Amino acid sequence: MRATVMYAAGDVRIENVADPAIQEPGDAVIRVTRACICGSDLWPYKSLQPSDGARVMGHEAIGVVEEIGAGVRTIKVGDVVVMPFAFSDGTCLFCDEGLQTECVHGGFFGNPEVPGAQSEAVRVPLADGTLYVLPVGEDDALMPSLLTLSDVMGTGHHAAVVAKVGPGKSVAVVGDGAVGLCGVIAAKRLGAEQIVIMGRHDDRIALAREFGATDVVGERGAEGVERVKELTGGYGVDAVLECVGLDESMETAIEIARPGGAVGRVGVPQSDSMPGAKSSFFGNVTVGGGPAPVRAYIDELLPDILDGRIEPGRVFDREVDLDGVPEGYRAMNDRESIKVLVRP
Amino acid sequence: MRATVMYAAGDVRIENVADPAIQEPGDAVIRVTRACICGSDLWPYKSLQPSDGARVMGHEAIGVVEEIGAGVRTIKVGDVVVMPFAFSDGTCLFCDEGLQTECVHGGFFGNPEVPGAQSEAVRVPLADGTLYVLPVGEDDALMPSLLTLSDVMGTGHHAAVVAKVGPGKSVAVVGDGAVGLCGVIAAKRLGAEQIVIMGRHDDRIALAREFGATDVVGERGAEGVERVKELTGGYGVDAVLECVGLDESMETAIEIARPGGAVGRVGVPQSDSMPGAKSSFFGNVTVGGGPAPVRAYIDELLPDILDGRIEPGRVFDREVDLDGVPEGYRAMNDRESIKVLVRP
Repeated sequence: MRATVMYAAGDVRIENVADPAIQEPGDAVIRVTRACICGSDLWPYKSLQPSDGARVMGHEAIGVVEEIGAGVRTIKVGDVVVMPFAFSDGTCLFCDEGLQTECVHGGFFGNPEVPGAQSEAVRVPLADGTLYVLPVGEDDALMPSLLTLSDVMGTGHHAAVVAKVGPGKSVAVVGDGAVGLCGVIAAKRLGAEQIVIMGRHDDRIALAREFGATDVVGERGAEGVERVKELTGGYGVDAVLECVGLDESMETAIEIARPGGAVGRVGVPQSDSMPGAKSSFFGNVTVGGGPAPVRAYIDELLPDILDGRIEPGRVFDREVDLDGVPEGYRAMNDRESIKVLVRP
Repeated sequence: MRATVMYAAGDVRIENVADPAIQEPGDAVIRVTRACICGSDLWPYKSLQPSDGARVMGHEAIGVVEEIGAGVRTIKVGDVVVMPFAFSDGTCLFCDEGLQTECVHGGFFGNPEVPGAQSEAVRVPLADGTLYVLPVGEDDALMPSLLTLSDVMGTGHHAAVVAKVGPGKSVAVVGDGAVGLCGVIAAKRLGAEQIVIMGRHDDRIALAREFGATDVVGERGAEGVERVKELTGGYGVDAVLECVGLDESMETAIEIARPGGAVGRVGVPQSDSMPGAKSSFFGNVTVGGGPAPVRAYIDELLPDILDGRIEPGRVFDREVDLDGVPEGYRAMNDRESIKVLVRP
């Protein structure tokens, strides 16, 4: 089959690779009908070393089940399914708590061990726990929004949940990428009264406003912090959604949280020490978050997509076939595109 | 009056200073009947520079109200009161939320602006919001435990609350100082099933066991982390109470939290970047805490002290008069004493 292989920073190729096959009794193989490129795919796109080893990319997909292992019980051939970015057994103590990204037997797609979904097909370990059957046909018009359940919508929601967004709260979203934009949707959906988007790309800001952002702060660093405080009576916001992962954005996130506020971080941290240890302490600011258990959130978010109450699929502003994937990486990396949908 | 003045690291003297007096209508002056030396007093004891300026030390006290300003409404002359380590107006939005240490008009004792309580008397700003009237006489036998409501018991409780300790939870307490020991009491009181104390001083460990610790880990660093994981099925604890504030202890705290766990930190951080930004992220571990709103917790903790259900006053293992305070600092700094009670 054909798949997206990244060899090194900037070196993305579409190549023939071995067809995926059932390896374990719990596996399923799905034919990928929709995939996409993630902001987190841009980290290796900027930094992957040839010595790291080539990898089949992609961790977000919707597809049709083609084959199942002997141990699969709930997923059937022909099901239209969404594939969360992490696989999980659905039965361990962490899955029981709705924290599938910490599953004892789980893992992630798009690495040398578990090839990714920017491909014609993908092997899904622990299919019963991982896949979620959608009640629609494979070409339903809602596919772009449904696809966001595999990562960005659930990730924005996780940031909002961890940051304790609720009715009447003030919220700031740091980062105007697809996750940040879904964070705006999540904050609005959970009842936030004021939603400040921090970003500086006109197209993204316009979309953020349509999703419910009430204020825009384009400044960064100390100036950005000052602006957010001006907008919030001098104290900062109740809840911050950190959707970038850089030291600078994390520092901003902590500084704009009001005393007793909370930061939900979903941007993958690019360094191992977190800034603002003292100001978060003296402000009694809580910092939480991590890889979002998007599998757990589908039950809650799916009805809102099916009923049209939220439209996270609008973050896709470009669509490509497999041959267009390398150009899709370039466009996202150059900030020409917010998020690229792939139809293999 | 006589008071404890710190001039520089290691230089603590008992001197005559100006008597405290009402400066603002909301002030009260209390005659100090009990004060104590705090673990956090040891940071300046190790590091204060002469150029930082001399300060009257002490932020924990019980006393008798001697004088009140014209605006004081609820506190009366003669009341026996506990003085939390932070003063607060009791009316701002943060006080309303029970977060008095973030009070808009609040501040801390024991600095050049607001002299401290290791003294014969102390001026208390915002007396109505700050002071808590005790229903006992000034020489009640419960005084040592009641005195811990001014800081260490409420601080240990804050760590436990932020770390989401509850019935059946597994807890680790990093640090066997007075706050850590009160953290053990708090964890037990909130229903924790397993309480691991990390420390290596025999006297403190013995007390921790009496307070409810079920396991002891004397190892530090990677070895300590390994031991806690062994004790908890390999995953770490649900809740960690960080009661030290050093990078090493914070790193340990994060590493011993199980996926989805929480760290409540009350040790004042000694550096501005927090270690473990990646492991806390990938473990979905939440880190919160800060200066404890001990004023808010007195309502909840006081009945347990009055009824003898908890005895946090047992952390005091030495009692001195004012002249004995410099020796008290030395003894605590040399780990000869857990916590020193002062009777001015």
